[in-house]
Amino acid sequence: MKNIISTKVKNMQPSGIRAFFDLVLGMKEVISLGVGEPDFVTPWQIREAGIYSLEQGYTSYTSNKGLYKLRLGLNRFLKSEYGVEYCPDEEMLITVGVSEGLDLALRALLNPGDKILIPTPCYVSYGPMTELAGGEPVYIDTSKDGFKLKPGVLEKHIDKKVKGIILNYPANPTGVSYTRKELEEIKKILLKHGLICIVDEVYADLTYDFEHTCFASLKGAKNNTVYLNGFSKSYAMTGWRVGFACGPKEIIAAMTKIHQYSIMCVPITSQMAACEALQAGRRSVEEMKREYKRRREYIIGELNRIGLVCSKPQGAFYAFATLKKTGMSSMEFCQKLLKEQKVAIVPGTAFGENTKDYIRISYASSLDNLKEAISRIETFLKNKK
Amino acid sequence: MKNIISTKVKNMQPSGIRAFFDLVLGMKEVISLGVGEPDFVTPWQIREAGIYSLEQGYTSYTSNKGLYKLRLGLNRFLKSEYGVEYCPDEEMLITVGVSEGLDLALRALLNPGDKILIPTPCYVSYGPMTELAGGEPVYIDTSKDGFKLKPGVLEKHIDKKVKGIILNYPANPTGVSYTRKELEEIKKILLKHGLICIVDEVYADLTYDFEHTCFASLKGAKNNTVYLNGFSKSYAMTGWRVGFACGPKEIIAAMTKIHQYSIMCVPITSQMAACEALQAGRRSVEEMKREYKRRREYIIGELNRIGLVCSKPQGAFYAFATLKKTGMSSMEFCQKLLKEQKVAIVPGTAFGENTKDYIRISYASSLDNLKEAISRIETFLKNKK
Repeated sequence: MKNIISTKVKNMQPSGIRAFFDLVLGMKEVISLGVGEPDFVTPWQIREAGIYSLEQGYTSYTSNKGLYKLRLGLNRFLKSEYGVEYCPDEEMLITVGVSEGLDLALRALLNPGDKILIPTPCYVSYGPMTELAGGEPVYIDTSKDGFKLKPGVLEKHIDKKVKGIILNYPANPTGVSYTRKELEEIKKILLKHGLICIVDEVYADLTYDFEHTCFASLKGAKNNTVYLNGFSKSYAMTGWRVGFACGPKEIIAAMTKIHQYSIMCVPITSQMAACEALQAGRRSVEEMKREYKRRREYIIGELNRIGLVCSKPQGAFYAFATLKKTGMSSMEFCQKLLKEQKVAIVPGTAFGENTKDYIRISYASSLDNLKEAISRIETFLKNKK
Repeated sequence: MKNIISTKVKNMQPSGIRAFFDLVLGMKEVISLGVGEPDFVTPWQIREAGIYSLEQGYTSYTSNKGLYKLRLGLNRFLKSEYGVEYCPDEEMLITVGVSEGLDLALRALLNPGDKILIPTPCYVSYGPMTELAGGEPVYIDTSKDGFKLKPGVLEKHIDKKVKGIILNYPANPTGVSYTRKELEEIKKILLKHGLICIVDEVYADLTYDFEHTCFASLKGAKNNTVYLNGFSKSYAMTGWRVGFACGPKEIIAAMTKIHQYSIMCVPITSQMAACEALQAGRRSVEEMKREYKRRREYIIGELNRIGLVCSKPQGAFYAFATLKKTGMSSMEFCQKLLKEQKVAIVPGTAFGENTKDYIRISYASSLDNLKEAISRIETFLKNKK
């Protein structure tokens, strides 16, 4: 059989993170600051809720939309945290993390040829998922603007084929976030052109220097926003695969139509645990955030000291550092660093076109690991001189 | 915003099962023989494995492909059960049930306009998922052939645009299955035309009257088969959402490329539990199967006695009965039965075009429930005379 694979999938780039980390497999004594995953185990209280639900025999499908009590819990949380209200019945869907939420939103919204704006550098899935859904990603390079989307630059990229934007803040891989005032300006442009904002706020709880603003809480934005979030990063729940999508009821209904066939529902154990996370997990979120913040101070200071210049990330748990002083490309740097010093980090090229001088270092790792990694990187840089 | 939802999703039919069951919500004392879900709780040993993994702190991402030990366990199981071997590294992917496996297979294989053959009546997702992936479903009506796909009928539907078929046995909603000899004939036609067989064998373990034949175990079939299966039905694990796809490495690689972005991985707790299911859950499968078989004998005898003619299903846990003697359409029958006697079953129209004289009754419910349901249906029929 020839041409067995569909053209779109054949042309799809596999994740540059995963591709790089295939190299790590089987290597020993590697310090990995690569994958964007908390090093914390899910807090015990949350795990206990999962355990208890299994003991009680909760092992069946839930509603396609997700457990009502989880949607209700989210409704309350979003109202108290951001002052934004979504109807649990019609404006919410529990998803397999933000990953599924994004895929569903794009599939629900895009007709062939519709354009989606994507500020870069960006998370690895945005472009490929847009293309797979039949859309055309239009990348907006922010590398000259401190990795921030400027309203004027945004507006220049809008034409009649543009249906929306994928906005992510705090951002992976740069750690950049936006103040309410900055978001207001972006919102104004989007509303002026009737665009939809698919917003990935999965790192919202890890905002260090100012308060996180939920995009949907901006005046007039809610009707044009598909709000994606999840429990993976805030609550150290990556392995549970539970997130949520909120938005106008037509969009959530369309996403649910796909989800009911393609996934059925998020695993009930994960949903039960997520209910507990909302109830009693907030203190753990604060504790982990304090720890990430401590690590941030350390790693940013050290990276700049050894010549890998980077500004302080405002959120998430990544340092995005430039290699310009080293004269190496990011792929060369990462491959050699891995081979010679056994430290795994991600080349900037995984996140877009104009970041071949950058590396992403996750600081979701213990301070001891970070110290050892810095020492190895320092040795590596000295050997190169 | 006008035309906010993509045309494909706008035109997509929501599940006829779910649509009907929205009517049930909020009603009291209803006996539901509707949703295709075991009434058993997941066997304790399997739940215990999930609990233990949470206690041990397994809460992180797994490999995109799924836990290696689960893929290895499946490799061993499939070899011993069916004599078919799949490489855990390259020919297997752990999926969010068969639901996700099917969606991935269609997205990985179909270019716009590619046709997929679908024998009907069929499970509710096959058509909509095919269309959403850009394909064109070609339905093959089997209602005149005892709901079995006949090789001659199959061949008549093949043209150059046909890329493959979705084959499901034991079948939902009819309970029909195929002997090895019958499958050999289907296989011959498919191979002759170079078609791909996407086969959904999720009810394989619930085959009552002869041995289940794995399609991929047929000589020469493996290279053309995407084999989908899962833990939901056999092990009463619907709520865990764990299944698997096996196939030629090009196809599995393409499916994995999508899955790594759209889902990341199946929840680790579910995967841990699935490992235990393969290790120690087989006895429970046999026990549940005996119980389903006992219920089958009861319900089929009773349905025929009260005039709802149906042949004995060879597998799965559905009775597919005709209403011809009642003069009612399936939707009318189901709505009135629900309203007057509070028994919920699914109208045949949910599963295809030519089954408006049929109803699907799930016997994955306790014998007591089944007895009460039969008594109510009998009363209902008497009142109609």
